[in-house]
Amino acid sequence: MKTKVAIVGAGPSGLLLGHLLRAEGIDCVVVERQSRDYVLGRIRAGVLETITTDLMTRLGVDARLKAEGLIEGGFNLASTNHIVRIDIAALTGKHVTVYGQTEVTRDLMDAAPDRGLPIVFEAKDVALHDVDGAAPSLTYSKDGETHRIEADFIAGCDGFHGPSRKAIPAHAVREYEREYPFGWLGILADVPPCHPELIYANTDRGFALASMRSATRSRYYIQVPLTDRVEDWSEDRLWDELAARFDPISDNGVTRGPALEMSIAPLRSYVFETMRHGRLFLAGDSAHIVPPTGAKGLNLAASDVAYLSDALIAHYARGDDRGLEQYQAKALARIWKAERFSWFLTKLMHRFPEDGAFEHRMQTAELDYVASSEAMQTAIAENYVGLPL
Amino acid sequence: MKTKVAIVGAGPSGLLLGHLLRAEGIDCVVVERQSRDYVLGRIRAGVLETITTDLMTRLGVDARLKAEGLIEGGFNLASTNHIVRIDIAALTGKHVTVYGQTEVTRDLMDAAPDRGLPIVFEAKDVALHDVDGAAPSLTYSKDGETHRIEADFIAGCDGFHGPSRKAIPAHAVREYEREYPFGWLGILADVPPCHPELIYANTDRGFALASMRSATRSRYYIQVPLTDRVEDWSEDRLWDELAARFDPISDNGVTRGPALEMSIAPLRSYVFETMRHGRLFLAGDSAHIVPPTGAKGLNLAASDVAYLSDALIAHYARGDDRGLEQYQAKALARIWKAERFSWFLTKLMHRFPEDGAFEHRMQTAELDYVASSEAMQTAIAENYVGLPL
Repeated sequence: MKTKVAIVGAGPSGLLLGHLLRAEGIDCVVVERQSRDYVLGRIRAGVLETITTDLMTRLGVDARLKAEGLIEGGFNLASTNHIVRIDIAALTGKHVTVYGQTEVTRDLMDAAPDRGLPIVFEAKDVALHDVDGAAPSLTYSKDGETHRIEADFIAGCDGFHGPSRKAIPAHAVREYEREYPFGWLGILADVPPCHPELIYANTDRGFALASMRSATRSRYYIQVPLTDRVEDWSEDRLWDELAARFDPISDNGVTRGPALEMSIAPLRSYVFETMRHGRLFLAGDSAHIVPPTGAKGLNLAASDVAYLSDALIAHYARGDDRGLEQYQAKALARIWKAERFSWFLTKLMHRFPEDGAFEHRMQTAELDYVASSEAMQTAIAENYVGLPL
Repeated sequence: MKTKVAIVGAGPSGLLLGHLLRAEGIDCVVVERQSRDYVLGRIRAGVLETITTDLMTRLGVDARLKAEGLIEGGFNLASTNHIVRIDIAALTGKHVTVYGQTEVTRDLMDAAPDRGLPIVFEAKDVALHDVDGAAPSLTYSKDGETHRIEADFIAGCDGFHGPSRKAIPAHAVREYEREYPFGWLGILADVPPCHPELIYANTDRGFALASMRSATRSRYYIQVPLTDRVEDWSEDRLWDELAARFDPISDNGVTRGPALEMSIAPLRSYVFETMRHGRLFLAGDSAHIVPPTGAKGLNLAASDVAYLSDALIAHYARGDDRGLEQYQAKALARIWKAERFSWFLTKLMHRFPEDGAFEHRMQTAELDYVASSEAMQTAIAENYVGLPL
């Protein structure tokens, strides 16, 4: 089988890229290791920057996003008994939209057949070949047979654990990584949110995040030691902990309900430099991970894809390869700024086991300073809504 | 001997406090362990916020400051080959004044006789007595005799190593401290500055600061390991290092000249909470230390003294003790914000031995972000010119 762009991964970055190429009539195929149901079962972030919602609108796949997404004009940074609202609408003239990554993925999958975007699910043993030559290809096995896709370009949109990044030889690469000494224990439940807008809280009991997927579905997280396993936490114990942290500072207090999902995720900052090797281009989590604080992961994938799709479209429309040559530099400039913001917000809002009394007072002083300074609130808000492309 | 306020220490905070009290006719005495020449030989910071210059103006001791001080409307943050100017005048409507701490001290000492402010130099073995009772006193020895000063209040303006802080019992105190894993090697020389405004630089060779005391006197620093001694550095070696760091980014390049002073200072963040114990009030370095990055030390001493002098004046003028009661809370709110800024700027601009490639890229990303964001530049500028009283 031959195509122009072979896309590895049917998460939001692979699907967005596929749709953007198909909208310009460029042939492409998406290959996904998992089943459709598995992909749609993954619970991920849910705060979209306008650069992300703009892509959905440009593709005409924003009907449900417009109907169900919550427009948020602010969010909150809190300490044990004090809450500071960051009025992002007033400070930046922009907003974010609360709409689950799972829903973005579903909308893009649902639109794929009509747009002529083929998605091969349950493609096992995906392998990339000759990515630095003139004729790259990828192979996978399905239903007991091996399949090969020959392409002009391969887009590695296959996340942190996918094969694309590993197809780039070590000598061509520099990796940057920081692991954090805690994880996030999350719970999803069909209960109304405790507060109309997100709250990031650095309380005496540790970090906690109150967020929502809709007016009736809440998503909470608390910071836990890396040694904790989800089995160590009953739903009751987690709700008790959330109530202790959010009842003093939220408008409505925490409403309890059965968990739709409970899991622990580690926090990691990671950047893989290079994002291009020959005819392979990386986008999204295959090239970089941010800690979830600030919800930059999906939005960075969207900006990567915006740059990469423009570059591929220019290549096919006009034989103009400048976008492909500049892709890595453009993408990394925005990625590093988002890495910085995610790292800053993670450090500001969590209790680090290695920190002493001085470092904790620095967190308090920084939150006090944020509360008093419109300039600092603006700096935070402009990162939260997303820096310009 | 009896007085109203006994002031320990003839540095800028003790002298400013003494003058402010004398201007309202309140009796006070300053007691200083060192000689006048020793105090005037100490080389310290030289960037004054308007809250500090305003106090000099209010006291009418600003003639030389006005004639010789350099009004600075900006300063610079730099990396190895890139310089970002923070236009503090445009961003905040304020400025700072470059005028050596030594010169402030000299002006205040010179004015003391005319204003009826007695200063006892070379007062040895200063000891504080009964600070939590109704009749505190201090004793010192001079010329072979022991002297006692009885006072209503004692102001501990005697710096980090003075006896005042130590007169407060441990049970009444909480200390916060961070030591940094490097020192500043400084050189003072009568050569024109390499650049019209200060440059803080985080270069591949390490941190460096280019500053000045006047149009013809430069003050430079570089980050050195704590194990270095000043004897390890020849003047030539230091000038070579400064030229390597500043020639690529400064307007004029580094001009060399004989060292008037060369020394290594450690960097420390420190806050002593409580600033009041009975009738003893601490102000300036006796209660808090900031790393020199951002030049907040002298300016924090000035804000402490502004609060404390207002409080003492209200006590004597109207029997109003609210200022004395609120002194610690008011002073600490500003101190912690300045501690935060000094810590932030120290972390941004130095190479920390414990940092890896990721942390260094975070510094670069933060400097890139500062270069791109007026909001972040404003946040830095408003701290640099000094947060409001």
